[in-house]
Amino acid sequence: MSNDETTTTRMTKPSAGYALNIHAAAHDVAEFSGMVRAIVACGADIRSMDTLGDGTRQLVVACSGVEQQQAVRAAIATSPGVRALSITDATFDLHLGGKIEVTPRTSVRNADELAMAYTPGVGRVSMAIADDPSVVWTHTGRANAVAVLSDGTAVLGLGNIGPEAAMPVMEGKAVLFKQFGGVDAYPICINASSVDEIVAVAKAIAPSFGGINLEDIAAPACFEIEERLQRELDIPVFHDDQHGTAIVVLAAVQNAAKVVGKSLSDMTVAVVGTGAAGVACAKLLHLVGVADIIGVDRTGILHDGREDNLVPSKRWFVEHGNHAGRTGGVAEALKGADVLLGLSGPGVIEAEWLVNMADDAIVFAMANPVPEVMPELMPANVAVVATGRSDYPNQINNVLAFPGVFRGLLDVRATSCTEEMKLAAAAALAAFVQQPTADRILPGAFDEGVAQAVAHAVAATATAQGCVRD
Amino acid sequence: MSNDETTTTRMTKPSAGYALNIHAAAHDVAEFSGMVRAIVACGADIRSMDTLGDGTRQLVVACSGVEQQQAVRAAIATSPGVRALSITDATFDLHLGGKIEVTPRTSVRNADELAMAYTPGVGRVSMAIADDPSVVWTHTGRANAVAVLSDGTAVLGLGNIGPEAAMPVMEGKAVLFKQFGGVDAYPICINASSVDEIVAVAKAIAPSFGGINLEDIAAPACFEIEERLQRELDIPVFHDDQHGTAIVVLAAVQNAAKVVGKSLSDMTVAVVGTGAAGVACAKLLHLVGVADIIGVDRTGILHDGREDNLVPSKRWFVEHGNHAGRTGGVAEALKGADVLLGLSGPGVIEAEWLVNMADDAIVFAMANPVPEVMPELMPANVAVVATGRSDYPNQINNVLAFPGVFRGLLDVRATSCTEEMKLAAAAALAAFVQQPTADRILPGAFDEGVAQAVAHAVAATATAQGCVRD
Repeated sequence: MSNDETTTTRMTKPSAGYALNIHAAAHDVAEFSGMVRAIVACGADIRSMDTLGDGTRQLVVACSGVEQQQAVRAAIATSPGVRALSITDATFDLHLGGKIEVTPRTSVRNADELAMAYTPGVGRVSMAIADDPSVVWTHTGRANAVAVLSDGTAVLGLGNIGPEAAMPVMEGKAVLFKQFGGVDAYPICINASSVDEIVAVAKAIAPSFGGINLEDIAAPACFEIEERLQRELDIPVFHDDQHGTAIVVLAAVQNAAKVVGKSLSDMTVAVVGTGAAGVACAKLLHLVGVADIIGVDRTGILHDGREDNLVPSKRWFVEHGNHAGRTGGVAEALKGADVLLGLSGPGVIEAEWLVNMADDAIVFAMANPVPEVMPELMPANVAVVATGRSDYPNQINNVLAFPGVFRGLLDVRATSCTEEMKLAAAAALAAFVQQPTADRILPGAFDEGVAQAVAHAVAATATAQGCVRD
Repeated sequence: MSNDETTTTRMTKPSAGYALNIHAAAHDVAEFSGMVRAIVACGADIRSMDTLGDGTRQLVVACSGVEQQQAVRAAIATSPGVRALSITDATFDLHLGGKIEVTPRTSVRNADELAMAYTPGVGRVSMAIADDPSVVWTHTGRANAVAVLSDGTAVLGLGNIGPEAAMPVMEGKAVLFKQFGGVDAYPICINASSVDEIVAVAKAIAPSFGGINLEDIAAPACFEIEERLQRELDIPVFHDDQHGTAIVVLAAVQNAAKVVGKSLSDMTVAVVGTGAAGVACAKLLHLVGVADIIGVDRTGILHDGREDNLVPSKRWFVEHGNHAGRTGGVAEALKGADVLLGLSGPGVIEAEWLVNMADDAIVFAMANPVPEVMPELMPANVAVVATGRSDYPNQINNVLAFPGVFRGLLDVRATSCTEEMKLAAAAALAAFVQQPTADRILPGAFDEGVAQAVAHAVAATATAQGCVRD
């Protein structure tokens, strides 16, 4: 099997993200078996099959994409004797009606309960807050509430698709916030056309929340928005696309370095893709003393002689890294590099370029769902590989960071989120894996206790730094 | 018993809004009985008492106010043999940690569920919305989500206490929205110092919501904010302090008129208090053809000769009512009036003025918690009395309107909330009481089916008016 075939095969592996919910009837077992064979022949994966009381079958079939879904539909339609009662897309089924709700923590079943939860009782709590503002942190949900704020300008890898189209992502984030961190996250997708407007909205709504998670806001606007909000608000502001990614990447780099027996202070890191995530990763790696960081954007290596007008976030790479003044493209950036951080797009890196990296190289190809270079293509000098995907070892997944980070910030009513807290979060995440190996430099998304470990580290650091509310 | 004593007694009736949670130990039944006698002697009301496994007692004791709470604490402290293990304020206990949470409607327990609720599956739903904006109404929570937006400038009767202090009220509203209407309500308390800022925030966050409930925003700013938002947004905007109150008041007036056998088109209504609620009530009554409406503010009757500069909302009364050009104060406004709507402050109306109202007069004294005039003081010509309180018949309570109004608006994905929909809501509310009597002109807050009846009327009217989304 050639490398290309491998790549193709792996890139089109069935995923639950493209699963079908199938309800089918047939006259006998032979007909059902025929349907099963037809589905499997499409390359789809039958994740589950149940026989209902009336003898009909309910299947969940993971597919590799919309094309394979269509093939499965056709296969069922042409299976002798089989009648499809319904075939629906499981992902869309799951999203019907939205993924979150706002539920009471207290019941109001009678006049007494109404008198406590609403007038006249509630007025007493309001007056208590008016008299002593600290009461808002104990007697409202503020201390556990985070706004997940997006303008929809950089949604996942999908670009500027607007606030409405960003909603499913923010709701998904809210689900993960609650499930992994016990945090009440409120998706706020906004119409806004400037940095000033987004800053104004965030500042306006701040009294309702204990923290603000910025999400899917395009670079370079995201940098100024976060900086201004950090300066002007007394609650923590955290841009997950930047810092969530940076925390997980730093933890992964630390453990990968341990696996290959290198020291961060000796390492050269090539960062391919200098958007929000790339910049934040570079800054955090710089803080922990990585020897050199070389930034590469679409035009090539960021260096002092670049004639295009670099935005400040890209200038950072020129000022803080690329000590040898390299020029050229990705291939040149990778020569002798110890670490490649790919935060760009699918397939932009040729496997042959990796051969010129250092021995025991570390490659994180994090473009999603299709990495910059597929793990199967790694040359022998690459010792540790990570991607953004769950179907390869070492998934770089922000869910390892943001629920725990905010859990920790909220637990101590933090007034800001500092670089030290992010470093502590990364250290806790790295330490969670006691014996890192090439195939396990990070915890899994569903490992128990990850968010708690991160939360403790963040809360302890916030307390030590005095960035907490009484 | 003099009228004054009656008033005092009724005004200081124990309420759950001032209840204490008491946990006490004693050596024997006699000591517990002594404690019970001491509590009752304070005038407090023991709502419940339980004996725990260890023989200690848990009590809920409703008090009339903070003074009586203190008397009860003292009574327990001096009860022979009794040891108070804890005495806490039940209202504050109930508010600890806030009254709402954001909960997932879908679980994310494994990689497959993560792949559907978050990446890569969620990206497919986002793209579907980017391709067809109507999908946001089916595959996110938007169609069931309402922002409860306040700047905290007119919170209950407490005035301008700010966004943080408004939070408990908005959370309470969210509890009632969910419990009575199944609506997901998001409390958004904002820092804002101008009409423009509030309008800008509301417009910015609109893509996340199916409707906006404005709340506790001071007049006259609230009028302009609502008008501009109604004009500039394609989702319904509803200021509950205005329209929620107006709907319930109209329903109550309609049933009260039925009880006394009068026609609205013959009635003169005096509106005492021309803030947000008074103006909205007057406008709705005008729409249904009430003969004359006389507005009275702190300065007196609103008439053409008033030398102070009247804001537009007050000018409305001059232009649309007071046909006889009355001048003077409340007493003059009430002469011969059929209906008094009190939406002002405690005790501002003298009982003797009511004697000059028409026969079979209708008096709604809605200031909370202490009415403009106590029901016990009504002269013989007053036939129907309503208040804002739950401990008298005919409570005018917004909870009868807003959950059903928004349930109806959301069910048809309404694009606005028109006067016709408000009239339909009031008619449905009035019709819910099949045989109105002087003591039952409105349903009770906990009567089953009220919100559904209101919702159906609103949804049907929205559909008939074509103010709905496909």
